[in-house]
Amino acid sequence: MNFSSKLLENAVNEVSQLPGIGRRTALRLVLHLLKRPKEQTHHLASALNVLVEDIKKCKKCHNISDVELCEICSSHHRNEGIVCVVEDIRDVMAIESTAQYKGVYHVLGGKISPIEGVGPQNLTIESLVKKVKRGDVEEIIFALSSTMEGDTTNFYIYKQLESLKIKMSTIARGISVGDELEYADEVTLGRSIINRVPFVNSLQS
Amino acid sequence: MNFSSKLLENAVNEVSQLPGIGRRTALRLVLHLLKRPKEQTHHLASALNVLVEDIKKCKKCHNISDVELCEICSSHHRNEGIVCVVEDIRDVMAIESTAQYKGVYHVLGGKISPIEGVGPQNLTIESLVKKVKRGDVEEIIFALSSTMEGDTTNFYIYKQLESLKIKMSTIARGISVGDELEYADEVTLGRSIINRVPFVNSLQS
Repeated sequence: MNFSSKLLENAVNEVSQLPGIGRRTALRLVLHLLKRPKEQTHHLASALNVLVEDIKKCKKCHNISDVELCEICSSHHRNEGIVCVVEDIRDVMAIESTAQYKGVYHVLGGKISPIEGVGPQNLTIESLVKKVKRGDVEEIIFALSSTMEGDTTNFYIYKQLESLKIKMSTIARGISVGDELEYADEVTLGRSIINRVPFVNSLQS
Repeated sequence: MNFSSKLLENAVNEVSQLPGIGRRTALRLVLHLLKRPKEQTHHLASALNVLVEDIKKCKKCHNISDVELCEICSSHHRNEGIVCVVEDIRDVMAIESTAQYKGVYHVLGGKISPIEGVGPQNLTIESLVKKVKRGDVEEIIFALSSTMEGDTTNFYIYKQLESLKIKMSTIARGISVGDELEYADEVTLGRSIINRVPFVNSLQS
């Protein structure tokens, strides 16, 4: 692309560094900024600047938070003995929106992925192990996505905690509510048969 | 979505105002910003701030430019008598990349679109008419996209310039080079037959 303006080219270069945004999309976005009032772009820029400067991580669960101790960890209505291990804040938001979980979280900040250069030391695994060793935790629920990296991470943590004799579970894999059996993949369907649950449990939700 | 952080929520709100970016995508982008060094986000923010503050429009063709008179309008190698009417800078970039055009441009800044509240007065049509009335222009080439809005805009400008007796043309519509006839739509194929060109012309490119 050959730009008539260095300012435009610079802005497009910066925007196209974001994941999933190519140079054409970046140009479209930047041209949109030029069509709307300047102030809106200043608001956008300052929101991003303030975010990266002032954001904190909860010292207990490592979730993104504005304060030292996040809302969930500081709540008296949550059971601190049950810890759900998730990848990032999006998973916390997804589980919270079900309103089915009353324990707390531990946000790993990613999954073990040698390809992307993410090892156990880049995640908050050590802090989780310490938490368990202190004896604060009764049960760990693994809720990482069911991929190669997710399973590797689950297994790594499992090995670290195995000797500590606490309850460890993973969220159930199975057919989505409302899905047709015939379109389900074999692995999911297979697991849903092996991990079948008493019929009365299906009546609860 | 229920965010654990106001800073995060604010950033997601701002980013999701961009066209084609929903709240989920915005959250993904913002979380990406938190994973990379802060300085990169400051660079992004300042590139956008500087862009909206310092960008200029060429006083002749209204294209986006860093200076008063853009590179194309100030070049001595361009024929100022031929003016190609386009919607925005992306069309200029597309035509420039063909290296087939040696005239200049007139950037309208949009198309007439009552639905989006864009009337002739919001575009640079008046400035184009003035340019033609001054007698600087021999030929106008319409290169707007071939949509309802594009055709309306073409026709509106045509009506304004009709009495001034200058040459007016539109870029050729036809089958793309490399495309199979059988998959072409009828309108395009129809136009390509009506506007057929002498065979020798097809040997030139």
